[in-house]
Amino acid sequence: MCGSDGTNGANGANGTNGAANQGAHFRSSPYQPVGDFLSNVNKFKIIESTLREGEQFANAYFDTETKIKIAKALDEFGVDYIELTSPAASEQSRKDCEAICKLGLKAKILTHVRCDMRDAKLAVETGVDGLDVVIGTSSFLREHSHGKDMAYIEKTAIEVIEYIKSKGLEVRFSSEDSFRSDLVDLLSLYRAVDKVGVNRVGIADTVGCASPRQVYDLVRTLRGVVSCDIETHFHDDTGCSIANAFCALEAGATHIDTSVLGIGERNGITPLGGLLARMVVSAPDYVKSKYKLHMLKEIEDMVAEAVEVNTPFNNPITGFCAFTHKAGIHAKAILNNPSTYEILNPADFGLTRYVHFASRLTGWNAVKTRVGQLGLAMTDDQIKEVTAKIKALADVRPIAIDDADSIIRSFHLTLHEQPAAAQANGAPVEVVQ
Amino acid sequence: MCGSDGTNGANGANGTNGAANQGAHFRSSPYQPVGDFLSNVNKFKIIESTLREGEQFANAYFDTETKIKIAKALDEFGVDYIELTSPAASEQSRKDCEAICKLGLKAKILTHVRCDMRDAKLAVETGVDGLDVVIGTSSFLREHSHGKDMAYIEKTAIEVIEYIKSKGLEVRFSSEDSFRSDLVDLLSLYRAVDKVGVNRVGIADTVGCASPRQVYDLVRTLRGVVSCDIETHFHDDTGCSIANAFCALEAGATHIDTSVLGIGERNGITPLGGLLARMVVSAPDYVKSKYKLHMLKEIEDMVAEAVEVNTPFNNPITGFCAFTHKAGIHAKAILNNPSTYEILNPADFGLTRYVHFASRLTGWNAVKTRVGQLGLAMTDDQIKEVTAKIKALADVRPIAIDDADSIIRSFHLTLHEQPAAAQANGAPVEVVQ
Repeated sequence: MCGSDGTNGANGANGTNGAANQGAHFRSSPYQPVGDFLSNVNKFKIIESTLREGEQFANAYFDTETKIKIAKALDEFGVDYIELTSPAASEQSRKDCEAICKLGLKAKILTHVRCDMRDAKLAVETGVDGLDVVIGTSSFLREHSHGKDMAYIEKTAIEVIEYIKSKGLEVRFSSEDSFRSDLVDLLSLYRAVDKVGVNRVGIADTVGCASPRQVYDLVRTLRGVVSCDIETHFHDDTGCSIANAFCALEAGATHIDTSVLGIGERNGITPLGGLLARMVVSAPDYVKSKYKLHMLKEIEDMVAEAVEVNTPFNNPITGFCAFTHKAGIHAKAILNNPSTYEILNPADFGLTRYVHFASRLTGWNAVKTRVGQLGLAMTDDQIKEVTAKIKALADVRPIAIDDADSIIRSFHLTLHEQPAAAQANGAPVEVVQ
Repeated sequence: MCGSDGTNGANGANGTNGAANQGAHFRSSPYQPVGDFLSNVNKFKIIESTLREGEQFANAYFDTETKIKIAKALDEFGVDYIELTSPAASEQSRKDCEAICKLGLKAKILTHVRCDMRDAKLAVETGVDGLDVVIGTSSFLREHSHGKDMAYIEKTAIEVIEYIKSKGLEVRFSSEDSFRSDLVDLLSLYRAVDKVGVNRVGIADTVGCASPRQVYDLVRTLRGVVSCDIETHFHDDTGCSIANAFCALEAGATHIDTSVLGIGERNGITPLGGLLARMVVSAPDYVKSKYKLHMLKEIEDMVAEAVEVNTPFNNPITGFCAFTHKAGIHAKAILNNPSTYEILNPADFGLTRYVHFASRLTGWNAVKTRVGQLGLAMTDDQIKEVTAKIKALADVRPIAIDDADSIIRSFHLTLHEQPAAAQANGAPVEVVQ
């Protein structure tokens, strides 16, 4: 229904002027936060979990072929790690894990397992590069899920970590529901696993309750306690998963978990595309040099098709209207310089912008551009007059590009049919519709 | 395709146990940020802008009847203010503004106008309760949009504000693109308008570039400069609009702009529902007493239909899977206590949760619940056995609830057809499919 080509529903006039020569205009904000030595905003790594967290999405059923297609695309896109469902989940999960390990991808392959020696042994045998080990540490999960106390958790964690390291693999240890866990227990546990040489500790907002400054505080505190890397995982129940990931990086986190379109348990986690929208604004050189951003839409379409959802209309970057400008005042400025109302450059993602001129909110600058696109010549006064006609019709009913174009063409035709005298004295010219 | 009733696509088993008696379980996090006297998290007001910002959404065309329907619904929902398109935008916009003012709603009616005496005069005559005045202050907008300098902006602002106040109306003065404006210019301008008695100053992230801690810093700084209320407006280009609104409230902002589903220019602004998902976690008593949360889905559906979009699959609260639990480990805990994996209570929004049991990631606890729902009696060992059968089929192809139910019923039937001896010694029982 809503085509991203702008010809259907979006009523868009392709702004052809900006895309090629605007690079220099995309200056960042003059109001910058004071630099912070903790920040990893310009050197973060992505652990892409579409094939683990994403498999927990209600609609997800990935057969082996689909998993391989997604893994290859993410690898080409440039993600650092690809995380897979535990081989303990099912027999096919184990086989798929082995198959993806054999693809010889540049990205490291991880699998996500419970903090349990049986699961760890099964995972090590699949050929993965590393294990993401997890256990619930909140009182909620300790009471209602596994029933273990903190002393038992620490003892088991160290056994499992030492076993994985003895096999020469990378290992992350994460709490689950970190933001509802006791802070002292959590720091004590992380310090213990850091001492035995874990590669990363993980902070997980499993229920999506964390807020940005809370994330900043917890990660910054943890940064002072452990020397290993810090991975973070944010659910989106309260709509903060992208912002929380950003604040985690500001506080010294090194790795962010994502999934394509954010798919995962409930309404999911930090989306890959949304995170990169945030990061390309804050660290443009790093992001553009590391990730093949023009592949984003193709990867999102692939996953959306596999799980039978539509890309949300308001998705950052790839939503059908992410680069559509409608209000007259916006359109005027955008036509002068795209960075007036755009912080993202659509060309970086292989996309284009649209200036919407067929509405009651349009302005004559947008219409002037359209007149130019139609190859017609009019004075500014004439353009203002035809703009008033377009607005008048759009006040009565929704109008399509074709309607607006017809008004423009008809008006233009009438101009040349008028006697020269009438044109010279600027008399109003009525369009016959 | 994705039904929110969970029977189509979501493969959900309605978790009937939790909704009624879980209120007491929804404790907030034990890890709370240190209290802050600046924070307005538990006393914010909403300026609902679906009928202004939302009208700038690519697909939006609201006729008078639709505008009135939306305004009435938002009023009943409990928003403090309803903001309308400038009467200067078009003749019909002016008439609609007058019509909505005459409805006698509890919510105050605002209209959003350029910082221009002609626009202000036109707006005052419509009968609105207040005017939201705006002008671009970033170097981008000063160069490429209106071309005015800061001295001119301040002089005009004071004239317009004094005029509106002389008419006995409420007035807000906002910069546009505040996060790319010179900080000293901005504070100086706000101090000047505060001195002449403006009701609110507004901070607007017009291009969606702001990050949460940057928002906190700017609003906190502004809080020390002006004595009036502070309104904030956040675009979602980089996915931070909800988090930024939250951080603004933490820093002392008093009013948040929203639109239903976030519709607006490009990919829109802070969504009403998403903001309330965030706020109900942080200030449950205030939010639940003030807003009719059970109306949220109906209002979102109304606006989605009017602008011809689908509610995003991953929308907070109302996305079809927002309360669907799939992984076995999650399902087990949720069935014990919903707050293990839910920070939001679906019952607060008139919704229900689903525990997804028809997948390869399922666990026997979820299947046990389903067996109970089907009115069948089985021992735990038998349930574990039938769970293995469900997982085996789900490893081969996507399965629907009906498939899983068939396996359960067929297995149950076979149990009673077995000779007593075979049941007693626990011999494996094969299901004939």
